[in-house]
Amino acid sequence: MFSKTKSVPIIIGTSVAFAFVGASIWIFKQLSPADKDLSTSHKLVNDDLAIKNTEVEEKEPSRHIRNRLDNLVRRKFFYCNSAEIYGGIAGVLDYGPIGCEIKENIISLFRKHFIQKEKMVQVECAALTPEKVLVESGHVEKFCDLMVKDKTQYKKVETTKDQGEYKKFNLLFSTYVGPDPTCQTKAYLRPETAQGIFLNFARLYDYVHRQLPFAAVQIGPAYRNEISPRNGLLRAREFLLAEIQHFYDPQEGCHKCFSTVAGLSIPLLPAQAQMEKKDAKNIKLGDAVADHIISNQHLAYFIGKIYQFLLMVGVDQKKIRFRQHLPNEMAFYAQDCWDAECHTSYGWIECVGCADRSTYDLTRHSEATGADMRADRKLSEAKIKEITLAPVSSAIIQKYGKEAAKALIKELKKHEKIIAEKIEKEDQVELPVNGTNFTITSKMVKVKKCTKRVEEEKFVPAVIEPSFGVGRIMYVLLEHNFKIREGSSDRTFFSFPPMVAPYKCCVLPIRKDPEIMNMVGRICEDLEAENITFTTDASAASIGRRYARQDELGVPFILTVDDITLRKPHSVTLRDRDSMLQYRVPVSNVVNILNDLTSGKVKWATARSKYSKNKFWEILRGWWPF
Amino acid sequence: MFSKTKSVPIIIGTSVAFAFVGASIWIFKQLSPADKDLSTSHKLVNDDLAIKNTEVEEKEPSRHIRNRLDNLVRRKFFYCNSAEIYGGIAGVLDYGPIGCEIKENIISLFRKHFIQKEKMVQVECAALTPEKVLVESGHVEKFCDLMVKDKTQYKKVETTKDQGEYKKFNLLFSTYVGPDPTCQTKAYLRPETAQGIFLNFARLYDYVHRQLPFAAVQIGPAYRNEISPRNGLLRAREFLLAEIQHFYDPQEGCHKCFSTVAGLSIPLLPAQAQMEKKDAKNIKLGDAVADHIISNQHLAYFIGKIYQFLLMVGVDQKKIRFRQHLPNEMAFYAQDCWDAECHTSYGWIECVGCADRSTYDLTRHSEATGADMRADRKLSEAKIKEITLAPVSSAIIQKYGKEAAKALIKELKKHEKIIAEKIEKEDQVELPVNGTNFTITSKMVKVKKCTKRVEEEKFVPAVIEPSFGVGRIMYVLLEHNFKIREGSSDRTFFSFPPMVAPYKCCVLPIRKDPEIMNMVGRICEDLEAENITFTTDASAASIGRRYARQDELGVPFILTVDDITLRKPHSVTLRDRDSMLQYRVPVSNVVNILNDLTSGKVKWATARSKYSKNKFWEILRGWWPF
Repeated sequence: MFSKTKSVPIIIGTSVAFAFVGASIWIFKQLSPADKDLSTSHKLVNDDLAIKNTEVEEKEPSRHIRNRLDNLVRRKFFYCNSAEIYGGIAGVLDYGPIGCEIKENIISLFRKHFIQKEKMVQVECAALTPEKVLVESGHVEKFCDLMVKDKTQYKKVETTKDQGEYKKFNLLFSTYVGPDPTCQTKAYLRPETAQGIFLNFARLYDYVHRQLPFAAVQIGPAYRNEISPRNGLLRAREFLLAEIQHFYDPQEGCHKCFSTVAGLSIPLLPAQAQMEKKDAKNIKLGDAVADHIISNQHLAYFIGKIYQFLLMVGVDQKKIRFRQHLPNEMAFYAQDCWDAECHTSYGWIECVGCADRSTYDLTRHSEATGADMRADRKLSEAKIKEITLAPVSSAIIQKYGKEAAKALIKELKKHEKIIAEKIEKEDQVELPVNGTNFTITSKMVKVKKCTKRVEEEKFVPAVIEPSFGVGRIMYVLLEHNFKIREGSSDRTFFSFPPMVAPYKCCVLPIRKDPEIMNMVGRICEDLEAENITFTTDASAASIGRRYARQDELGVPFILTVDDITLRKPHSVTLRDRDSMLQYRVPVSNVVNILNDLTSGKVKWATARSKYSKNKFWEILRGWWPF
Repeated sequence: MFSKTKSVPIIIGTSVAFAFVGASIWIFKQLSPADKDLSTSHKLVNDDLAIKNTEVEEKEPSRHIRNRLDNLVRRKFFYCNSAEIYGGIAGVLDYGPIGCEIKENIISLFRKHFIQKEKMVQVECAALTPEKVLVESGHVEKFCDLMVKDKTQYKKVETTKDQGEYKKFNLLFSTYVGPDPTCQTKAYLRPETAQGIFLNFARLYDYVHRQLPFAAVQIGPAYRNEISPRNGLLRAREFLLAEIQHFYDPQEGCHKCFSTVAGLSIPLLPAQAQMEKKDAKNIKLGDAVADHIISNQHLAYFIGKIYQFLLMVGVDQKKIRFRQHLPNEMAFYAQDCWDAECHTSYGWIECVGCADRSTYDLTRHSEATGADMRADRKLSEAKIKEITLAPVSSAIIQKYGKEAAKALIKELKKHEKIIAEKIEKEDQVELPVNGTNFTITSKMVKVKKCTKRVEEEKFVPAVIEPSFGVGRIMYVLLEHNFKIREGSSDRTFFSFPPMVAPYKCCVLPIRKDPEIMNMVGRICEDLEAENITFTTDASAASIGRRYARQDELGVPFILTVDDITLRKPHSVTLRDRDSMLQYRVPVSNVVNILNDLTSGKVKWATARSKYSKNKFWEILRGWWPF
């Protein structure tokens, strides 16, 4: 929230820092302010831009910081414009090594928090989608944005109020499949991953042994031909989605785990409050459902889970809100929708949509294909079915021909009860099929009255869809975790939670000496065996500069192998990125400590007390360099 | 190799199996031959097909087995045709939960074996690729297959010999980007992930601190508009690639880790041997390089690493060969290429291509964009640069104008030495730029003779590209690991290595009794904490049927919670899928045992001896049920 709230960098007491001064040369160097590697970032800013930045800084500190952030992430290859050397395409991006690691860590936490804990099933469907699918889903007709021509370029607009002359633009990318130019199949690149799950509903329902509720998940790329792609990761034309479809019985409003989130107090901004120009208000999810602010427990449950997830990956708690869509901004498939929005220097950004798609999609696809997309509901009281209708195929075919009869019989079955009652009363009934009215007489159907106990009935499940824009979440993490060291405005770092950080630690040799490098190799092997990701930096740069390089990537811990390391029992210094504090720990135990610190089991702040109980820090006291 | 070599199912001695008969009812049931769940597979085969299968079986046992395999993987939703309820598109597939797990496990092993162990850097580039990129890479012109019209359909052919009338067909999928119909950008869906890495070469080279060799990796979807997509995962139009670009100095033929693979004996089928109609022959990689069968150590190193990887994921060692491309089948960008081929019921299938792309791609992109895609080479002996050329801009501009002068000066610098020498001799020189010849006179350049030590020179790195078709590898794993139980031809199982199996174990309650379910829950929590993937099956089916279900998914281990479990010290039976042997192990230790067995640290066959040393099996002896 750079533009509205003052950024709160982590404040490191200089008194603590100075405690290190006497320790050794390299600890001193850590504090040296100028740093060649860091100054590169200034060189990349040309003079014009530098002047602009100063101007901007006075008026809008947030933009100045954003420029530094942008500069850093491109310089360190978190991501960049795709095919940049050819000029690229707006809104199409490539992730570099650091970006890939962060993205994979976000996804890995998503898997743990949602797929594993909630026992969801995963699918991976193709992005190439036959035209028919998206015609029936409504996307070919309705997945459009409004645009106006602004001088030479088209520009996206939110409503027709903005200007008089506007045009509807469909965001689907199309292509043609097959080698024969006379009969190629038109296909689209999927604009969302959801359709793949809907189309496979029957298989998935079988896979989970025909039990509701269940949730299916898909993580994969989606494509939208945005009118005005902009702001790097925030509005891209190719982007990674992680989507959950939670299928449930719409008559069953309770979610069995709702109690685990009911007490969460979350900033909610309902549609009504927006129309009354009110701000978001913290409300407990349990109260929000009881007061009909959120329509049911299923929707509220996922709002709670999304909130927990965003905090876990490192979104600033003070910069999240859940905003309900206004009736006029709802997607065509949604009945209700709450967006998890995060505040950035661009304002509030939608990062996760949580839509109630009700029975819309399954019904559309079932009607279009005849595929059964219903679930079974056990009835608590058996129902008595009284009337049935048996079409007399021969009579119908004789009157209307084979082709029409097929459609008619299907339609008759659908409205069995109503038609049977009408036939009984009026001897005939008009039935519209594909726009034509057909007369069905009592000769064409047999009405049977029977009594039959029915203990199960079929119904179309409803769907809650949390949909995560992974790139947007990543961008928010970059902004919310970008910090400037107090008293050293040249030095920036990312305060990512260890589980999201691109590497968990870095192993530094104090110098490139065979004995020291040997110990570095040994520690790296231990880290590898425990699957703790790490980097090394054996360059000739000063230790302080090497620390700063890792800070710029958000690496939370640094191990330094120095001369004391070579003495028995072997030990290394362990440096914490955020506090810059260092402790000396035994080599034999350092991997366990890092495992605890980086898996989220233990926080740095509590590590010392935890380990002192284990007589751990006591062993070390003797090694403390002062 | 169903069609050529007799399949060798794991043979389980019936004597061993019968040893269990007396133990308890559920152990007896495990051996009951008929199984409702299994018989479903027959129901899915309609009568016509059943007759055909019998016929087929007599002539071609492999196809019959393949039909059973296909049936199983679709019934259990390993994968299916995408958008099947709408008729789908040939060659476009969806992965279900089981398929996703297997695929992720293959990728996870790929990451360990290549990315982590070899310290490769990862990128994820966009699939949408501007036309210019693929024009310059040569794909727009040359990425074509041949086809002929066969009655109504086009069919892919390998050479023009097959029929007279053929057509070239480009396999790129195209689309248009941007909202303005008058100036949309043409783009393609990438047919390989490699280009993204080439375009980012300069950034990546910086990222690795400008050191060669280094390798970059990308795992992601690729798209090819195949003429005749077929055979499920084997020729798909949308498919997952895992590609490595290993950049190295072409003057440096040695790979520093080559010695680790030099002793590997691998079935090689060089181009020469194919032309002489010879078979593949086992050759040590070291000898293959020494005898110039494989052109250099870099290429041979990756052939070795690929071979190790394929064995690790579960490809049958007897069904792998490396075949060198014949000169006429080489891709347009390749100088040499060896395919890792696996034998299946469809014959030999390319699963991994290992191409020497030399400096082709970097040179093309550098020439097209002017971007510097060179690396630095430290010279062992400093070179003496004797002649330099300084363009006299004013003279050139005066003669040819500003625009042409820019291009000319760039070109002059490129061929500095040659031009300087010619000017000295002939006073002028003709220089072709963009198709026009320009005359450069001695007034337009200053030739300086100087002596300058040059200790570094620039060069374009060469590239070795191992390219893995993940779907194809998965299909090969399915065929190579599909086994039929001896003496029980109805019962099939997948003998996947534990690291590839979709779930590592299944926890079964002997019956749905609160005390027993409580223990199941406790064990599941322990497994979750250790990240061991598992399923449970608390259905009412017999224990034998439930074992068979897990066998069909290839789950390697099953824990059964029974009445003895409830006694102290708590214990469960641990069943091995391949041998069907069971041991009783303490609940307190079962997660550790599974960790060892499923991470590849310990094989089942050696587990017993390992644990008996730890007094482990001795503790259990008392619990052994007979």
